[in-house]
Amino acid sequence: MMVVCLHTLMGKYAASIDDVRSAAKRIKGVGHRTPVLTNNTLNQMAGRNLFFKCENFQKIGAFKFRGGWNAVSILDDDEASKGVCTHSSGNHAQAVAYAAMMRGIPSYIVMPNNAPEVKLNAVKGYKAEITLCEPTLEARRTTLEKIAKKTGATVIHPFNNPDVIAGQGTAALELIEDIEDLDAIIAPIGGGGLMSGTCVATHSLLPNAKLYGAEPKGADDAYRSLKEGRMLPQENPDTICDGLLTSLGENTWNILKDHLDAIYTVTDDEVIKAMRLIWERMKIIIEPSCATPVAVVLSDQFKALEGMENIGIILTGGNVDLSKLPF
Amino acid sequence: MMVVCLHTLMGKYAASIDDVRSAAKRIKGVGHRTPVLTNNTLNQMAGRNLFFKCENFQKIGAFKFRGGWNAVSILDDDEASKGVCTHSSGNHAQAVAYAAMMRGIPSYIVMPNNAPEVKLNAVKGYKAEITLCEPTLEARRTTLEKIAKKTGATVIHPFNNPDVIAGQGTAALELIEDIEDLDAIIAPIGGGGLMSGTCVATHSLLPNAKLYGAEPKGADDAYRSLKEGRMLPQENPDTICDGLLTSLGENTWNILKDHLDAIYTVTDDEVIKAMRLIWERMKIIIEPSCATPVAVVLSDQFKALEGMENIGIILTGGNVDLSKLPF
Repeated sequence: MMVVCLHTLMGKYAASIDDVRSAAKRIKGVGHRTPVLTNNTLNQMAGRNLFFKCENFQKIGAFKFRGGWNAVSILDDDEASKGVCTHSSGNHAQAVAYAAMMRGIPSYIVMPNNAPEVKLNAVKGYKAEITLCEPTLEARRTTLEKIAKKTGATVIHPFNNPDVIAGQGTAALELIEDIEDLDAIIAPIGGGGLMSGTCVATHSLLPNAKLYGAEPKGADDAYRSLKEGRMLPQENPDTICDGLLTSLGENTWNILKDHLDAIYTVTDDEVIKAMRLIWERMKIIIEPSCATPVAVVLSDQFKALEGMENIGIILTGGNVDLSKLPF
Repeated sequence: MMVVCLHTLMGKYAASIDDVRSAAKRIKGVGHRTPVLTNNTLNQMAGRNLFFKCENFQKIGAFKFRGGWNAVSILDDDEASKGVCTHSSGNHAQAVAYAAMMRGIPSYIVMPNNAPEVKLNAVKGYKAEITLCEPTLEARRTTLEKIAKKTGATVIHPFNNPDVIAGQGTAALELIEDIEDLDAIIAPIGGGGLMSGTCVATHSLLPNAKLYGAEPKGADDAYRSLKEGRMLPQENPDTICDGLLTSLGENTWNILKDHLDAIYTVTDDEVIKAMRLIWERMKIIIEPSCATPVAVVLSDQFKALEGMENIGIILTGGNVDLSKLPF
């Protein structure tokens, strides 16, 4: 007797295209449908048509609003009344705090004590109770555990939470709806929430599109993981990309390993150059983490790839501390 | 016998609404129809609905493209073949150089030797021949005269040229087409080209709308002129707003004196604060000159005005030297 085991997309991964579509319905009218911008100079430099999905214009200034709102709005009233909590290097903190404020429930946020001041202030502005801790994953985890135990608040994991993954996938969903004929989509990888949601949405709607990740060389755990075929942790990250310091999670890795065509890494110098170029040429503000895929598409290595004309780039966020610019 | 003298809008001023409409046709498909953005935080701070016409996203990064292109594209082939020339503290220089490059004719640009490097480089990039001079109006004028005489190039005055005024008016034309029920429009005043074009377009389409000018206190010639009822020159300007240093011209003053409801002045500190606020909250890059009307609408004096809900603000440009930020 033969047992045939059928893995559907839905069952195999933490989030399905149906989850992304449901998230899109929850987000509609609450978040922004962000614009897709183009720029002739950038196109010339990249040798291709680039389509920038501007999540720096999203609520709280980053795509993280999508996952945060999806995960917070999906809670039943009993759970919600005790509040929500999370740890985050910045934008996810803002997303959860903002979503909680909109739902009228408390939020408790654990942040590393080296988070940019602009992000700390924004979280405070959304009425969250902030607990600072050492900037290590271990310190963040244990501090969060204590807070969750004490308050009964629901933990909204920054990237491994399936509702967060589904929420982040809505950016690619909108991008694909707006721009026909994308040959590839590229996005940065930190914990992998955005990239895995992007994989689910893109390969359901555009099965033949290529999917690329971008990482700073100083936090290249996903690159190394994909190369070795097993999830490797990020130890001692060293990069200006403060949103990309964390390791992958089981749920995101599980999706990424099956869907990504490649991950490209770039130096901080390349990131800063790309960031400055976007500021000067497009007159929009993006943060360093957000500039990684821009640096990739401008690299000789990426430009040498054949058979791709139209590239979607998810510009992830614009929360920069203007007092501490790298140029 | 009685002689009745009828001044029509068309005859009395250097540019009419028909001129603005013709300019709009020339600009369509060549320049960008720039977006109109809104922001909840800014609305709350201003106590009104603000509609930002984003000319920082225009070709060359500023509204000046409109006037420059209108004036260059309108030349007949004989005139055009000898090229065009102008003096400008920056954005008009880029506009004329870019327009000339697009038309395939030479351009000769006189720039003050204290112009931001980013603007100098951009003009060079558009293949213009640059002549630097002392940063005084007198030096700019005499240098330009010499060049025009030597080359036979047509002088495109930065603001007093009627075709430039008509071109600049197309920003307000688009804004009014996009946003219904504007109660007022506010824009910065340097030489008055943008503001006078805005006056012509706005009062033809929205006769009851209020029209406000914004100036830095360190270059408040238009404010003083309107107060005294006669055109006063700007001597020794002292402000961070490098696009607003010049005096008015006869043609712009002639329009402004009849149409403006008021001019408000702001300090450089208020300008820098407003600029930073737009960067942080809207994630878009605007230059100091561009922040003057933002500073005005956030001032207590302006907020105390009654009977206005919807204010259009022309964000004039985003050409900033990122190495020399004021914060």
